[in-house]
Amino acid sequence: MTGTDIQHLSARDISRLTNSGDLTAEAVVRACLERIAAREDAVGAWAFLDPEKAIAQAKQVDRRPEGGALRGVPVGIKDIIATVDMPTCYGSPIYKNHRPAWDAACVASIRQSGGIIMGKTVTTEFASSYPGKTANPKDTERTPGGSSSGSAAAVADFMVPLAVGTQTGGSVIRPASFCGIVGYKPSFGLINRHGVKPLSESFDTVGVMARSVDDAALLAMTLMGRTNAANTAMIEPPSFAVWRNAALDKADGSTLAAFEEFINRAAEAGAIIEDVAEPAEIADLDHAHHQIEYFEMGQALLFEYQTHRDHLSTALRGRLEAGRAISIEQYDAMREAAKRARAQMNRIFQRCDAILYPSTLGEAPRGLEATGNALFNRFWTALYGPVITLPIGIGPSGMPLGVQLVGRRDNDARLLTMARWFEKPGQK
Amino acid sequence: MTGTDIQHLSARDISRLTNSGDLTAEAVVRACLERIAAREDAVGAWAFLDPEKAIAQAKQVDRRPEGGALRGVPVGIKDIIATVDMPTCYGSPIYKNHRPAWDAACVASIRQSGGIIMGKTVTTEFASSYPGKTANPKDTERTPGGSSSGSAAAVADFMVPLAVGTQTGGSVIRPASFCGIVGYKPSFGLINRHGVKPLSESFDTVGVMARSVDDAALLAMTLMGRTNAANTAMIEPPSFAVWRNAALDKADGSTLAAFEEFINRAAEAGAIIEDVAEPAEIADLDHAHHQIEYFEMGQALLFEYQTHRDHLSTALRGRLEAGRAISIEQYDAMREAAKRARAQMNRIFQRCDAILYPSTLGEAPRGLEATGNALFNRFWTALYGPVITLPIGIGPSGMPLGVQLVGRRDNDARLLTMARWFEKPGQK
Repeated sequence: MTGTDIQHLSARDISRLTNSGDLTAEAVVRACLERIAAREDAVGAWAFLDPEKAIAQAKQVDRRPEGGALRGVPVGIKDIIATVDMPTCYGSPIYKNHRPAWDAACVASIRQSGGIIMGKTVTTEFASSYPGKTANPKDTERTPGGSSSGSAAAVADFMVPLAVGTQTGGSVIRPASFCGIVGYKPSFGLINRHGVKPLSESFDTVGVMARSVDDAALLAMTLMGRTNAANTAMIEPPSFAVWRNAALDKADGSTLAAFEEFINRAAEAGAIIEDVAEPAEIADLDHAHHQIEYFEMGQALLFEYQTHRDHLSTALRGRLEAGRAISIEQYDAMREAAKRARAQMNRIFQRCDAILYPSTLGEAPRGLEATGNALFNRFWTALYGPVITLPIGIGPSGMPLGVQLVGRRDNDARLLTMARWFEKPGQK
Repeated sequence: MTGTDIQHLSARDISRLTNSGDLTAEAVVRACLERIAAREDAVGAWAFLDPEKAIAQAKQVDRRPEGGALRGVPVGIKDIIATVDMPTCYGSPIYKNHRPAWDAACVASIRQSGGIIMGKTVTTEFASSYPGKTANPKDTERTPGGSSSGSAAAVADFMVPLAVGTQTGGSVIRPASFCGIVGYKPSFGLINRHGVKPLSESFDTVGVMARSVDDAALLAMTLMGRTNAANTAMIEPPSFAVWRNAALDKADGSTLAAFEEFINRAAEAGAIIEDVAEPAEIADLDHAHHQIEYFEMGQALLFEYQTHRDHLSTALRGRLEAGRAISIEQYDAMREAAKRARAQMNRIFQRCDAILYPSTLGEAPRGLEATGNALFNRFWTALYGPVITLPIGIGPSGMPLGVQLVGRRDNDARLLTMARWFEKPGQK
């Protein structure tokens, strides 16, 4: 196989070939490093990458007698996540060259499964909004989205087959969609967060980036300790609810058109499609999400605010101050509102297998000074169910568009089965 | 005031006197250091204590023009919690001399409020069961309980008026009760956990130790950003439910007798007391707690297990292996069971203001090689409501006994009001 062949392998295939002895982890890592060497100047996906360190890990995996679900699979780790052998800087100059004393739980789990920690991918500042250096590999004058910017760009650009990200608002789904790949934010609480620097405890969720649903499932289920649990039987025909709410009006016309076309294709392929009106309890959830997130950021980043204020971006400083100004009564009211909103969802999932909603308002915006709008993601994050974004086509500027499939909380396997349905030939 | 006078001041009084200029933070810290110097050899409450560092902080606070809810109040910090200027070793030789890059959110909040980070208090290994060096100040041949061993001992022994602990099973309530002080575990999720090394994300809760309900409320509400929210109007007569379950049979006879006597005194003082039978959904919650905790420990401490296995206690290594052996189906079933158990509680709180239950099975056991049984605490932790332990008397060996008051989730202010009722003269 050529380097290009290897770069285009799925993680599942890499695992199969390395476990059977038909491919070495070292060959995989070298192929990925080749791609990175060719493209990193343009894309800027990596906050830290040491080829020698990656090759050394690969050699070690090649010597391991036992198999592993991720054997020889290079994985990019968002730089908000602790690694004991690589700097972890959280996208902030405050932690330049910071080296944690441990691996995050998800990193330890990848190593245990034979995966290669390829390097650290660029995050926005503390996984909030201030962007890093990463460009969108589909058009380097456009943002890749954030906060998991480097993870999305690295996977989309074939530098690695898999990457780990985190989502508090729309930080997995938006960049994955902007870069034209699959992004998966599991149900809240299913992937252990130890070693992920917290932003908002109520919402922070570890998620994954891949180029197929199957690969996303492979990584996420490994991180959950849920290997082999990802497959539930497909019930034909699948039944989807199209979520209709006021926010949809904010989408670009061409994005809405692509979304409706996607729905039509699904119906033609046999899916049952039904519109569902957003329950009143959920209409203000974006606001509740904002208030809860800001309040909790104000607490989680209090040390940095007190001690390193001059090294915070103006944007983040403003958010932390906004968070500290939210009253406890307001915070409590918003938590209650979010709880009421979540209680609405069981009813909706009695009538459908998954909900469909556009992944973003439009194509990735021009410029690297902002990472786009998470309006279409935040309320789903606050509802705690699993969300996966699938690429569904190309917008008027030639940039990817995506659809979110939203599942019932803690029914992730079912959502992944539904998402796989769209990958079958002729149904996408 | 003499050193002894200052050592016996409440945190509320220290705050009042330092804010009014009638007492300096430095005098408070020096008085506490005096007590520590006299007693630390016998008690062993501190994992790290540097008198110079504490005095320097006090001088800095004395120079601050602005007031603060904890101005001049020395606080002990359990050594499972990150401090940027003091080692943080998690009760494990793996992290000997480890120095985090930040303060935990709760530590930053104490500093912001003018509190003094007095030092790090002894924790069991990773806040699990393997004990540290701390002895019970009421009888140094007995355990102080754990995992927040040093925090309880330091407060009970008048070394500091306040300390921070954490509870995953019974790690705040049990040591507080064994040492004869007030321990308060707030509702799950109300105190930010950033910087607390996770054991079990589903249960880890930051809590506080104090010598009065009012002081416990002062610290906890400050940590929550909830200052002034701790007072709700007392409705006379208060109504309490006595929780009756099978586990009660495991209690020592003298503990049960003291508990019944406490209930009788409350009734005589005017409280309405009603027995409540444990709902069937809650009867197995201790088992569910165990399974969930072990599964999550297996993930959270995977790095330590992989990399530093020889430096883990045999007990912890066994727990981590037990956790890794729990199937995902079992974990999911236990999470569902815990959710169903929680759903029972609203009904019960329609009929009472708080639930009463013994804090421990008996007095603090002899010996320092184990920290006692958390059977009476784990299921309350799993129910997510606020729990406070109050000292109610002395057992046959002269050691303290306590009662737990359990409140409705997120109704912490109400529980604290109920707890204060017991501190009124003639009602305790």
